[in-house]
Amino acid sequence: MPSYTAPTKDMQFLLHDVLNVTGSQTPGYDELEAEFTGAVLEEAGKISSEVLTPLNAVGDSEGCRFENGVVYTPTGFKDAFEQMKEGGWTGLDMPEEYGGQNMPYVLGTAVGEMFSASNQAFTMYQGLTHGAASAILAHGSEQQKNTYLPKMVACEWTGTMNLTEPHCGTDLGLMRTKAEPQDDGSYKITGQKIFISAGEHDMADNIIHLVLAKITGGPEGIKGVSLFIVPKFHVNGDGSLGARNGVACGKIEEKMGIHGNSTCVMNYDGATGYLLGEEHKGMRAMFTMMNEARLGVGMQGLAQAEVAYQNALEYAKDRLQGRDVTGVKNPDGPADPLIVHPDIRRSLMEQKSFAEGARAFILWGATLIDAAHRAGDKDADGLVSLVTPVIKGFLTDIGYDMTVKAQQVYGGHGYIEEWGMSQFTRDARIAMIYEGANGVQALDLVGRKLAQDGGKHVMAFFELIKSFIKENSGDEAIDRDFMEPLKNASKDLQAAGMYFMANGMKNPNNALAGSNDFMHMFGHVCLGYMWARIALAAKAALDGGASDVAFYETKLATGRYYMARQLPMTTTHLARIETGAEPVMALDAANF
Amino acid sequence: MPSYTAPTKDMQFLLHDVLNVTGSQTPGYDELEAEFTGAVLEEAGKISSEVLTPLNAVGDSEGCRFENGVVYTPTGFKDAFEQMKEGGWTGLDMPEEYGGQNMPYVLGTAVGEMFSASNQAFTMYQGLTHGAASAILAHGSEQQKNTYLPKMVACEWTGTMNLTEPHCGTDLGLMRTKAEPQDDGSYKITGQKIFISAGEHDMADNIIHLVLAKITGGPEGIKGVSLFIVPKFHVNGDGSLGARNGVACGKIEEKMGIHGNSTCVMNYDGATGYLLGEEHKGMRAMFTMMNEARLGVGMQGLAQAEVAYQNALEYAKDRLQGRDVTGVKNPDGPADPLIVHPDIRRSLMEQKSFAEGARAFILWGATLIDAAHRAGDKDADGLVSLVTPVIKGFLTDIGYDMTVKAQQVYGGHGYIEEWGMSQFTRDARIAMIYEGANGVQALDLVGRKLAQDGGKHVMAFFELIKSFIKENSGDEAIDRDFMEPLKNASKDLQAAGMYFMANGMKNPNNALAGSNDFMHMFGHVCLGYMWARIALAAKAALDGGASDVAFYETKLATGRYYMARQLPMTTTHLARIETGAEPVMALDAANF
Repeated sequence: MPSYTAPTKDMQFLLHDVLNVTGSQTPGYDELEAEFTGAVLEEAGKISSEVLTPLNAVGDSEGCRFENGVVYTPTGFKDAFEQMKEGGWTGLDMPEEYGGQNMPYVLGTAVGEMFSASNQAFTMYQGLTHGAASAILAHGSEQQKNTYLPKMVACEWTGTMNLTEPHCGTDLGLMRTKAEPQDDGSYKITGQKIFISAGEHDMADNIIHLVLAKITGGPEGIKGVSLFIVPKFHVNGDGSLGARNGVACGKIEEKMGIHGNSTCVMNYDGATGYLLGEEHKGMRAMFTMMNEARLGVGMQGLAQAEVAYQNALEYAKDRLQGRDVTGVKNPDGPADPLIVHPDIRRSLMEQKSFAEGARAFILWGATLIDAAHRAGDKDADGLVSLVTPVIKGFLTDIGYDMTVKAQQVYGGHGYIEEWGMSQFTRDARIAMIYEGANGVQALDLVGRKLAQDGGKHVMAFFELIKSFIKENSGDEAIDRDFMEPLKNASKDLQAAGMYFMANGMKNPNNALAGSNDFMHMFGHVCLGYMWARIALAAKAALDGGASDVAFYETKLATGRYYMARQLPMTTTHLARIETGAEPVMALDAANF
Repeated sequence: MPSYTAPTKDMQFLLHDVLNVTGSQTPGYDELEAEFTGAVLEEAGKISSEVLTPLNAVGDSEGCRFENGVVYTPTGFKDAFEQMKEGGWTGLDMPEEYGGQNMPYVLGTAVGEMFSASNQAFTMYQGLTHGAASAILAHGSEQQKNTYLPKMVACEWTGTMNLTEPHCGTDLGLMRTKAEPQDDGSYKITGQKIFISAGEHDMADNIIHLVLAKITGGPEGIKGVSLFIVPKFHVNGDGSLGARNGVACGKIEEKMGIHGNSTCVMNYDGATGYLLGEEHKGMRAMFTMMNEARLGVGMQGLAQAEVAYQNALEYAKDRLQGRDVTGVKNPDGPADPLIVHPDIRRSLMEQKSFAEGARAFILWGATLIDAAHRAGDKDADGLVSLVTPVIKGFLTDIGYDMTVKAQQVYGGHGYIEEWGMSQFTRDARIAMIYEGANGVQALDLVGRKLAQDGGKHVMAFFELIKSFIKENSGDEAIDRDFMEPLKNASKDLQAAGMYFMANGMKNPNNALAGSNDFMHMFGHVCLGYMWARIALAAKAALDGGASDVAFYETKLATGRYYMARQLPMTTTHLARIETGAEPVMALDAANF
């Protein structure tokens, strides 16, 4: 059975040594003293390891059960959900006026990684509620906020997001769900939504569905889409629950993974809905929380990679198989542990250097979101908007690969379900798909974000890297191992951007054919940047006489691995990009 | 529900236009006239699409059932197995004297791809029988051959390979299963074997287990391992079946995929076994058929990639979502099909160029095996021995990636089981693990095969590429698009080999840390070589006035994609290799 140990020490190092959160001007960051964040992370780690981790395999093997319109969650989920509520975890970064604790998003993100790593399917019930509550917080009327938020922040009521229909996922302009205006200002919602995570379950008194639909008589396509609140049970004026609304779960899907989360077909049959935000501005309302939601999914990629790595590492230390070719390491045993073998190490170093770099990347992104939301920092908002598709797409693509590598360390034991490694791979797979499939992330990055505000944000990103290198150069080893590789990778990325500018005007496919490669290059540069920042912090700690020498030296060695062996991928990505549209678009569709 | 169309035309093109099989001196190849191979492939394709494909999802969702020591295969498997036997497919390339059809291995390989693509779990019952029969054919006494082969060639009895034990997979020297010599020349076999595919099932009258075990009192470790024939039912002198032998299935495993194949724990409790080959030479006996078995697993990587690609392609043509940014392609519909989008094309081109290149690589490998076995060609034997770990490791690693990409084309529909794309990914995953995990393939390649016979075979490989380029240069477009990229990639591969030679002597980990990268580089060079050969054949056909212009031009365009966009990976692999052991081995195990 897999185990999970929360990376509290690494998170503390990142928050304080690398990101220096208390030195930030962002409101609320002054509260993030090391002692305080340490205590929060410690508690979150405890509930992750002790409550959520043991339920992960249960959720996978039992799955959800659908009977007569009711969805039953796996054994133990309900109790665990109660514990999460009692611990106040569901409202950690929500406003105090609705019962939350108003902590910065960066702390919620660190805690969220732990919850996701220990039980992704379970954590989604809460995560979706958070997303729906954020939308109501941003776009709801006072009355809507007061009606729904206190219950949702406490997770007494959970939330969902209803976008997809059978014939449309990415292209929501094709949507058919209708909203008919009623005399009392409400709407009657009719249509079918699919792939609705947590759409129906037995852990909450009410479920608040946020539903995209088209108001009859409104504009065609995506411009006619509005967002509605559709509660499962009507809410009376006094806050008590009334009759069932006209929404029901039609079935739940059999899936590759996240079996513990109910993926529902939701049928709306004249259900009463309430407009959230403005008419026909449903997509805008959805998108205001997209940065946050996509960062959350990127985090899932990291989280599954982390927990899979932890278990692969344990196995590699325990399992005796073969001998170290450079000399026996375990002379008293029948064989040496797997970890002596270079190719096993290569795999473990890839996993470790990815997970730690990705964690820094996500926490950095979260500080940008905090700066944007809490301090109105427009530059931070532009920068995080630029890197959001990278966080989502790159971290879930590579995060998935890493779970596959971790599974491989187990050999045949990785393929059977008994050891739990298959689940990490199967669960991680969804993160590449939902909240905008990764191809859509690459399209968003290259087709929209690069040119946003006249290219200002991508220029700012390159300037950030450049001045970072300039300001921190001078140490020979750091320059050679970190700054030079970062400079080279960043040059590759800029060259790719130049290629797009020079060739995308005459044919946009010259850019779009390289979008996936560009997203991956960008990811490598961001992780390289993070590792350079980590290296500086580790070196400073060592120079300052820190007692835990092994911790900081391990950081430096892990970073050197990433810079030397992973960052050179930018060369191949650039070469691929510079072939342009021709190789990709050469065939007629009929000739494939 | 996924469909499968056998790539008969592509196989015919490869066998005749590219590999020119009838022009070969290998005994039996004169029979491989295009009309004959076409008829065989046509029939195999028919049974694949009509019989095996519909059972693939059934096998996945039902799985095998274990009750009171008996394993029940999924609904329909038994009938399909009878049809395979009646059609004579099980003995296609086995000797006529035992009831086979004595066809060359290359034809069996082409047919095997179809069977694997349409139903991997089902085809394994037959494939393992083939492997066990090959071992008896190579090492059995006349009496053993006469007793077992006629039944196994007909698949009335099936076969298994028993290597793994709970505490040892790769390191078989740790094996504990014992063989006690008896007065009558037989042995009593006692021990437990795990992960035994097709170890027990309800489709055959008898199961012939080949079991590795240590004869009591023999040498320690791997040198004391012998191979035994252990039938499930004793076989009487007249060939009739006697009592149950002391071997039983203890349980079947829950796995990520290949649910239709029973993966058994086999308990041997003083079971009667018969020595196959020489005492203490069990590993050698196993290894004589390893090239063939590993090529077969490499083929599974290709097969799953092919069928997943076929379905992704259909979906990309059917599913309407978004508009072509360069201009509407489906003005009468609400949106354009997915295939207009460059990133979808990129994914499809990766899949297509891999599958077709891999098919050529495997069929080429099969011709080398035929030349070695049927004509005693030592050079062919050395060459196929060199590329076997590449075929197994590279094609299953990349084949798996391709199933993931195919699944991604479906978005959320790829994650739910209903569409069948998840099964391709889950089934393909095992091929990276069994028959020697891919890390072991890389180790075999770099640690053993490179230096085999004084490095003769790798030198021969480089010479082969070099003279191929020299002999076929002269056409400007072919040189630019195929020969130059192949030359560059081959240079990268040679540089990596030089790095190993120069640095592996002082520290073998300088080579082993790069083994995985080297295996992948080698794979790219082989696929590049194949695409260059395909391009020449396609150009010759076009120059010769072939009528099916689109087919050959599509070959050229698909090859250009591979050369331009996939082959540059060798650059990054080389850069990684040249960092040597240091980044990989820097950490103490305790500091991970």
